[in-house]
Amino acid sequence: MKKGVMRPGHVQIRVLDMGEAVKHYTDLLGLIETDRDDQGRVYLKAWSEVDKFSVVLREADEPGCDFMGFKVVDEAALNQLEKDLVDYGVEVEQVPAEELKDCGRRVRFTVPSGHAFELYADKKYTGKWGVSSVNPEAWPRGLQGMKAVRFDHVLFYGPELAAVYDIFVNVLGFYLAEQVLDPEGTRVAQFLTVSMKEHDVAFIHHEEKGKFHHASFFLDTWEAVLRSADLISMTDTSIDIGPTRHGLTHGQTIYFFDPSGNRNEVFCGGDYHYPDHKPITWKAEDLGKAIFYHDRVLNERFLTVLT
Amino acid sequence: MKKGVMRPGHVQIRVLDMGEAVKHYTDLLGLIETDRDDQGRVYLKAWSEVDKFSVVLREADEPGCDFMGFKVVDEAALNQLEKDLVDYGVEVEQVPAEELKDCGRRVRFTVPSGHAFELYADKKYTGKWGVSSVNPEAWPRGLQGMKAVRFDHVLFYGPELAAVYDIFVNVLGFYLAEQVLDPEGTRVAQFLTVSMKEHDVAFIHHEEKGKFHHASFFLDTWEAVLRSADLISMTDTSIDIGPTRHGLTHGQTIYFFDPSGNRNEVFCGGDYHYPDHKPITWKAEDLGKAIFYHDRVLNERFLTVLT
Amino acid sequence: MKKGVMRPGHVQIRVLDMGEAVKHYTDLLGLIETDRDDQGRVYLKAWSEVDKFSVVLREADEPGCDFMGFKVVDEAALNQLEKDLVDYGVEVEQVPAEELKDCGRRVRFTVPSGHAFELYADKKYTGKWGVSSVNPEAWPRGLQGMKAVRFDHVLFYGPELAAVYDIFVNVLGFYLAEQVLDPEGTRVAQFLTVSMKEHDVAFIHHEEKGKFHHASFFLDTWEAVLRSADLISMTDTSIDIGPTRHGLTHGQTIYFFDPSGNRNEVFCGGDYHYPDHKPITWKAEDLGKAIFYHDRVLNERFLTVLT
Amino acid sequence: MKKGVMRPGHVQIRVLDMGEAVKHYTDLLGLIETDRDDQGRVYLKAWSEVDKFSVVLREADEPGCDFMGFKVVDEAALNQLEKDLVDYGVEVEQVPAEELKDCGRRVRFTVPSGHAFELYADKKYTGKWGVSSVNPEAWPRGLQGMKAVRFDHVLFYGPELAAVYDIFVNVLGFYLAEQVLDPEGTRVAQFLTVSMKEHDVAFIHHEEKGKFHHASFFLDTWEAVLRSADLISMTDTSIDIGPTRHGLTHGQTIYFFDPSGNRNEVFCGGDYHYPDHKPITWKAEDLGKAIFYHDRVLNERFLTVLT
Repeated sequence: MKKGVMRPGHVQIRVLDMGEAVKHYTDLLGLIETDRDDQGRVYLKAWSEVDKFSVVLREADEPGCDFMGFKVVDEAALNQLEKDLVDYGVEVEQVPAEELKDCGRRVRFTVPSGHAFELYADKKYTGKWGVSSVNPEAWPRGLQGMKAVRFDHVLFYGPELAAVYDIFVNVLGFYLAEQVLDPEGTRVAQFLTVSMKEHDVAFIHHEEKGKFHHASFFLDTWEAVLRSADLISMTDTSIDIGPTRHGLTHGQTIYFFDPSGNRNEVFCGGDYHYPDHKPITWKAEDLGKAIFYHDRVLNERFLTVLT
Repeated sequence: MKKGVMRPGHVQIRVLDMGEAVKHYTDLLGLIETDRDDQGRVYLKAWSEVDKFSVVLREADEPGCDFMGFKVVDEAALNQLEKDLVDYGVEVEQVPAEELKDCGRRVRFTVPSGHAFELYADKKYTGKWGVSSVNPEAWPRGLQGMKAVRFDHVLFYGPELAAVYDIFVNVLGFYLAEQVLDPEGTRVAQFLTVSMKEHDVAFIHHEEKGKFHHASFFLDTWEAVLRSADLISMTDTSIDIGPTRHGLTHGQTIYFFDPSGNRNEVFCGGDYHYPDHKPITWKAEDLGKAIFYHDRVLNERFLTVLT
Repeated sequence: MKKGVMRPGHVQIRVLDMGEAVKHYTDLLGLIETDRDDQGRVYLKAWSEVDKFSVVLREADEPGCDFMGFKVVDEAALNQLEKDLVDYGVEVEQVPAEELKDCGRRVRFTVPSGHAFELYADKKYTGKWGVSSVNPEAWPRGLQGMKAVRFDHVLFYGPELAAVYDIFVNVLGFYLAEQVLDPEGTRVAQFLTVSMKEHDVAFIHHEEKGKFHHASFFLDTWEAVLRSADLISMTDTSIDIGPTRHGLTHGQTIYFFDPSGNRNEVFCGGDYHYPDHKPITWKAEDLGKAIFYHDRVLNERFLTVLT
Repeated sequence: MKKGVMRPGHVQIRVLDMGEAVKHYTDLLGLIETDRDDQGRVYLKAWSEVDKFSVVLREADEPGCDFMGFKVVDEAALNQLEKDLVDYGVEVEQVPAEELKDCGRRVRFTVPSGHAFELYADKKYTGKWGVSSVNPEAWPRGLQGMKAVRFDHVLFYGPELAAVYDIFVNVLGFYLAEQVLDPEGTRVAQFLTVSMKEHDVAFIHHEEKGKFHHASFFLDTWEAVLRSADLISMTDTSIDIGPTRHGLTHGQTIYFFDPSGNRNEVFCGGDYHYPDHKPITWKAEDLGKAIFYHDRVLNERFLTVLT
């Protein structure tokens, strides 16, 4: 957090049918709908998040991810980061306050992998859902489905990982927590963090720009992962893989798809990171184990990514 | 247990290389070697079992299962069961006491699916491994690997399931806990129990006689299943599938292979059975979900069975 | 199950206020109300049970347990057990069919510790709650609170344990799974089973007759025990002790009280029993550890029992 | 981490008998001994820590805590923090490099509650114990006992909490994550963090200066907490309380004592913190539930603290 970027604050996901999508993200994942806007976008949050929303669904003709936003610690940090981006040669776009309801101004930019990111300092503070800020109970009653705890990270696919690394690490103050290196030493995957989490955003090399692999939500326990897998089956939801463990980060995971074809992850556990930790390296020739620690091979579906 | 059959007491498994096999079943599964005999067979048990052994490894040119044995409550029950088998028209073979060390006489017979079973009433009582019978601790320290709790059941593949059912249910006093029925109502899988467990032995229809699918070992918890999957990866052991849940029995499972190609299962959880429970039915057209509840498709490897 | 007694089938508990009691057993424990009768009694079951009810609440001026009933395998077994009780000198009382709704005739008797038990062979088969008998899902959605899996056992306090033992073991076909022996070798606690469970009913020595310690309900996992403890706190329910583990049976447990002062237990795990298992012995001088394995001392509340 | 303080880096604990203490912290907690020095001090670390040691044991006539050290991100941050402390009026002491083996210079100071703290920027980087930095396995084989994952935090008792708050928050860049307020609004407990953890150090009001409540170690799961409690019993170690959950932080915990009487905690779970999170408040009149969420009363032993 050395430059003031705190955490993944939101992700805007395109869905083909809003009704089906809202049902998926609320009934199955257990997110809470908090608002809708004039454009028809639906705002959702996970229960442990203190801000008003972390997921925005937008109805569109194609699934995918519009942008991912990071919350920074205050307006001063936002100004400095904006300046640092511009100084570094990154083109920034101003998104005015309230373009997303109850969210302050956003500084938007696209990185060379073709993905759009935003920084913002303000969003309406609504507190954790279902628990008081005084004498809070351990967890709220009345959660649905998987009871997702928080929006956690996004994995993108695209080219130019080195240039993306420079922006995140040198300009925005992220750290490289984990990486995959090919035999020539080229980094073909990078897991970046601004916190104790093993990744706040991650990139895997892909020829085409702007690909979206998955948005991920945190669960408390391995038992919650099992029950999530059960719910995937009970609701006849399309599963990708899991329950299993990743080699990278060692998180315990399931991948599945929303009704529009966007991949979701729910996971628990995983390693932790401090700024003085040396990056963990996985060899590209062992990518199967790096991604799916138990099977040690990639399934074909894993390779499918959205535009 | 209405006819006195208590539980799966042992299974004899053929292995290609005894050294590798013993390492697999002790270091990885966590069984304890308890003896060896003149034939070179190695005797193993899981820690919570009170008798001297439950797994016998025999070096051979082909992997597979020689026979499975059930312990009956006493010699009177053994005599009666033997008589009932003969009366029913099943050919029985006498295996004298001490053919397996510290095991009493065994009554051996082959069922129409081509699998050999045994009944016996006596085996040396050694008590649980590593815990006292007075003021016993919750679990023994010093267990290896997966820390398997007990030998649990075997799944066989073969023809003539109806005839096999008659012997187990009508002669030996087993109950049908779960079944798979094809659209014509033919039972293509049967899970049989003499206890509260959802299966003590199971059969899936297969054209060829005498096929062996897996021998299964019980674990305490879903977390133990995860750690077992981790160990499979750490030891570069061949995995089949998992961690996942079965639809049939709802147990939480991993399938993997010993160095000879015999499939092992470790699992936890699962439903329970009482004699008045009506059988659970899965439809053959939903066999994918019945076997692998999360993926809802059979992997190709599942279909591989040994002679 | 050698004499045909299968399992604890029901317990009738006295409560001071039916409304509060029903709320406790449904909202908190997660039992399902299945019926009420002309006497105002309320019938409840846990979701995995196949019969119509397992808990009957009766409003009364004092809390406590009226009787505990065991289901036997069929009418023939019931007749034989009734005859065996009478032959042994136990006075039996006939309770006609439908005295409990949808329950067949019951054979009631009181053992020398002062506790009333019943045997019955028939109860309306309603199947598991919330899951189909064809292609059943892993668990039902819509369960409340602790999501108790099944009524499991009762612990009574009273005198004359040896005489009670004779009836349960020699007449009814139970097995002694665990015991506490004082330095003179007198059994001061006995845990009796007719199944693979470590206890279906248990007795601890007490000078006064007919005392009721707790009725117990099974949970799936140690995490379910944690969440149950959380719910106890969230609902401001009176707790006795836990989460902890018992030494006896090694189950993982919480004790708490219903609004009338009846002690409930929810627990998971624990050892298993087969008829050839020698009884586990705990020494009376180590009773603290035998009861509460972690604290190794009895809390004062544990000693409180109801008339 | 806005001022560069990263994490609790070490704690020096006084023990009465070094042999017994090392056995306790290695065999039971599962720490790894990494070195000893000329003064006879023993250095230990938990497996997931990348630096050489996090616990230093010093033999002395009285148990207790000598000091707690925080690692800062680099020498520049250390210099600035030192200057800021001095400017604020805190007396600092220089401890030269190698006074603790393989540790750089430390800046030591005592806060008004009477507790000694240190800041340092360098310690020998040895990497995680038992796993490679390339293709790392999920966890190391060969860990002992509780398999503690990391040294996590310390809880101190003492006066002048407001003055301590000022130093930690205003000078060192910590955040107030949780607090207990008495009816007059006076803060009687403060949980301070420089990371996503709900506390890196905590203080509870006490009349006497410099009291030590416990040093805490992180575990992966609630099942690990259970097994730790089991091990406490198996090794006849003195337990304080647990397994249970805290209200404050919602972590799942056990308190127990080392052979010298120092209280240890092992715990898992708990909430997370970001700099924009408002502090969680517990009311002093609900301190029982705040500390022990399930029992909702303080046990007497909890109030015992060491000089």
